[in-house]
Amino acid sequence: MAGLLDELIDALRCLPGVGPRSAQRMALHLLERDRPGGERLSRCLSDAMARIGHCSTCRTLTEHETCTLCGDAGRRRDLVCVVEAPADVLAVEQATGYRGQYHVLLGHLSPLDGIGPEELGLDRLEARLEAGEIREVILATGTTAEGEVTAHYIGEMARARGIRSTRIAHGVPLGGELEYVDRGTLSHAFEGRRDY
Amino acid sequence: MAGLLDELIDALRCLPGVGPRSAQRMALHLLERDRPGGERLSRCLSDAMARIGHCSTCRTLTEHETCTLCGDAGRRRDLVCVVEAPADVLAVEQATGYRGQYHVLLGHLSPLDGIGPEELGLDRLEARLEAGEIREVILATGTTAEGEVTAHYIGEMARARGIRSTRIAHGVPLGGELEYVDRGTLSHAFEGRRDY
Repeated sequence: MAGLLDELIDALRCLPGVGPRSAQRMALHLLERDRPGGERLSRCLSDAMARIGHCSTCRTLTEHETCTLCGDAGRRRDLVCVVEAPADVLAVEQATGYRGQYHVLLGHLSPLDGIGPEELGLDRLEARLEAGEIREVILATGTTAEGEVTAHYIGEMARARGIRSTRIAHGVPLGGELEYVDRGTLSHAFEGRRDY
Repeated sequence: MAGLLDELIDALRCLPGVGPRSAQRMALHLLERDRPGGERLSRCLSDAMARIGHCSTCRTLTEHETCTLCGDAGRRRDLVCVVEAPADVLAVEQATGYRGQYHVLLGHLSPLDGIGPEELGLDRLEARLEAGEIREVILATGTTAEGEVTAHYIGEMARARGIRSTRIAHGVPLGGELEYVDRGTLSHAFEGRRDY
C-alpha cells in the first residue's frame, strides 16, 4: 500500500508495547478519525524531543533550567528522596504525600558498564548535602543488587556528613497474598517486621 | 512536573488503546531511550496527516492520486472487492491471495446518519462497473445489519448490469469450537453448508 502509511506504521513501533498490528490500528485510526490529534501529537513530540532536558538540580526531565518541583517554594528543603528514574518521581508524586526534594540518578552504580558516581550526578548530590539544609536522605532506589549497592553508597555519603538516611520499606504489597509473594520479598518482610 | 512532558503524555492519548499510564510510559521511554525514534515519529505523523488522502479510483488511503494497488498492472482488472475501510484492504492483502481491484466504501449505508450511496462513492463504483471490464463483484462488507444492506444494494447494482456478485463466506472460524461460537454465526454456518 502507500509508502507514507507504511512509514508511519513502522515509526509508531518505536513506542514501547506497540507491535505491527497495534501500530497499523493506530495509524489508520489517526488518518481516518483524528487527524487533528495526529498533528498535535507530531508537534508535541518534536517540541518535547528538542526542548526537554534535565533539571540542573535534581536531574529529572524538564524543559526549564530548574524543574517545577525544585522551584516549588512550598516543598520541604530538608528532605531529599533518591530515585533511579524520572518515572519514579512521577510514581512517588502520584502515590504518596511526599513534599520534599528529589535526586534522580538516571541509572544505578554499575562499574562494569562504566557507570560510577559521576554518571549518577552524585557530585551534585554531595554538594547539596554539604550545603547543610538536608537532614534526611530517603533511599528509594530499586531492589536489584545494583539498586542496593547504590543505596548503600549514598547512605555512606550521608552518614559521613552526619545526615540521617532511610530506606523505603520493602515487603508484602497491600492486598498481596502470602502464597503468591516471592521468597525474597517474604523473607525480607519477616526480617523487617515491626511492633504491632 | 514539566509542562511539555504533561502535554506529550496527553497528546499520546489520542492513540487508540493508550490510557494515562501507557502514555506516560511511552513519553518517558522516548525521552530517556529513543529520542531519534520520537523525532522520526513526529516527522512521519506530520507528513502522513498532511499528505495522505484517498485514492481517486478505489478510495483507500494513499498520498498519491492513485494508490499502488490500483496502479499495479499485474493485478486482475475483472475482479473488484468491496470493503468498508482501508484496514479491510490491508487485512485482505495480508491474509489472502486476492490479486484484483478494490472499492473502499469508507462506511456503510446508514440513511439515518445521512450516509447514502454518494457518501460511499457508489457513483464511482457504478462508473467502473459500466466500463465493462469487471466480471465479478466480491462483497466483503461487515456482517452488521448496515453491512448486509450495503452488500445487498451493491449486489443489485451489479445484477442490473449482468455482473456476477459474490459474498465472502461467513461461518465458524478456523480453530473455533462450536460451543463457543455465537448462535447467529452457527445458524449461518448451517444454512450455508456445502457438499463435502
